[in-house]
Amino acid sequence: MDNRPIGFLDSGVGGLTVARELMRQLPHEEIIYIGDSARAPYGPRPAEQIREYTWELVNFLLTKDVKMIVVACNTATAVAWEEIKDSLSIPVLGVILPGSSAAIKSTTKGHIGIIGTPMTIASNIYEQKIKALAPQMEVLSLSCPKFAPLVESNEMNSSVAKKVVYESLAPLVGKVDTLVLGCTHYPLLRPIIQNVMGPQVKLIDSGAECIRDVSVLLNYFQLNRSREVSTVKHRFYTTANPGSFKAIADQWFDQKIEVEHVDLSQLDNQIEME
Amino acid sequence: MDNRPIGFLDSGVGGLTVARELMRQLPHEEIIYIGDSARAPYGPRPAEQIREYTWELVNFLLTKDVKMIVVACNTATAVAWEEIKDSLSIPVLGVILPGSSAAIKSTTKGHIGIIGTPMTIASNIYEQKIKALAPQMEVLSLSCPKFAPLVESNEMNSSVAKKVVYESLAPLVGKVDTLVLGCTHYPLLRPIIQNVMGPQVKLIDSGAECIRDVSVLLNYFQLNRSREVSTVKHRFYTTANPGSFKAIADQWFDQKIEVEHVDLSQLDNQIEME
Repeated sequence: MDNRPIGFLDSGVGGLTVARELMRQLPHEEIIYIGDSARAPYGPRPAEQIREYTWELVNFLLTKDVKMIVVACNTATAVAWEEIKDSLSIPVLGVILPGSSAAIKSTTKGHIGIIGTPMTIASNIYEQKIKALAPQMEVLSLSCPKFAPLVESNEMNSSVAKKVVYESLAPLVGKVDTLVLGCTHYPLLRPIIQNVMGPQVKLIDSGAECIRDVSVLLNYFQLNRSREVSTVKHRFYTTANPGSFKAIADQWFDQKIEVEHVDLSQLDNQIEME
Repeated sequence: MDNRPIGFLDSGVGGLTVARELMRQLPHEEIIYIGDSARAPYGPRPAEQIREYTWELVNFLLTKDVKMIVVACNTATAVAWEEIKDSLSIPVLGVILPGSSAAIKSTTKGHIGIIGTPMTIASNIYEQKIKALAPQMEVLSLSCPKFAPLVESNEMNSSVAKKVVYESLAPLVGKVDTLVLGCTHYPLLRPIIQNVMGPQVKLIDSGAECIRDVSVLLNYFQLNRSREVSTVKHRFYTTANPGSFKAIADQWFDQKIEVEHVDLSQLDNQIEME
């Protein structure tokens, strides 16, 4: 038993789709969430900068005494998951391996599509992981640089969003039977994506898949929170304006949450002083 | 990627039910199995002896260069899982936590039954794990000392088996909505058990649940076997007569397997010589 919270990090609000899955699958666990909306999206940034930012988020979560970290961001997972996992003594989960495994299990014809940020797609990491597990798979990858900014600006239901998704996904329509939403922002666009791809295409939410793994690892490492602790208080932090973050979160969670602003540059001083 | 086999240990043939689940869920992974049928059943033995025997099986598997160990025996898991897991650098899975978690998810009325060997039931470990995760559950535990010997003697379809199961389970009939098969031998008696308990009672196969966790941990620790290696050659060892072991295994797996006898006392010399 371990009653400490689970840490979630993301470039912005996308990881909220993963946090919501945790609330659904493991309602007795507590969340500390940090979204780096001030510097989102991570996708178009150079790898070294993404690595540096991701470590700042990890260090913030460590000051909150988390028992596990979920890298709820495909871009950060692609760049830094293995390094963070190997450096920390607590379990660290990414979203890419769970999404890859689920896609292999889901596909019927062996034609898998991957959509993600420019960095995730350029890293080719989904294709690598899928082909390592199942070399016979055909993988079509597509960078969708406009999707995460749409979500960060709370435009996921607008007519602009519909037009952008329709135009962006055109190269994949009719070519895959399974599509991995390789960015945690994308489940917020899910109805539009499903509509464009057609009802027969299975959409894989890598974040939701990741939470199934969280459950197994909580068991394996014996870190489950006791259900005797009846109160659950999640905490959300953003590096940008809490108002915009809260507007998206309230809508996504279907409940009011409290969001605090955090200045990560202050964190360095705090860590040095400790 | 790691192409080494996964080690399975059991007091006898019961763990074959867990191995079969691995073949079904992860057909590209290879198995090294050791069953201690010469000293089965473990259930009625004192804890210290079970601990000693289990370590002998673990040490045998380590000589075969396994990448992960599945303690495919509830009695051995109850007595020694945590100690073995903490001592080895490779992942070690037991069957009790996966079974407990699955029972909590499965139950509708919160009335869970546990059946197991005398040692597993006396350890009270299922009730402890279930109540720690979900204190509101009502757990009814029942020792079934005659079940594992029935299976070890290949009598699982006999009229004696039906009578024994019927009489043994009487105290639980009508009192639980979910029943954990807390011994890996029991899935071999599943049709009879389901018949006695009634079709509305959900039977939890702790071994099958454990293999779902194996899949997640292979991902997490990046130990999956490459699917490019097309040949899969499982190896089975028993401390007793290979003929009797093989008769049960062939029937259970619905395919012929090769079984070798192993003398664990020779192993000590071998390890000393290395």
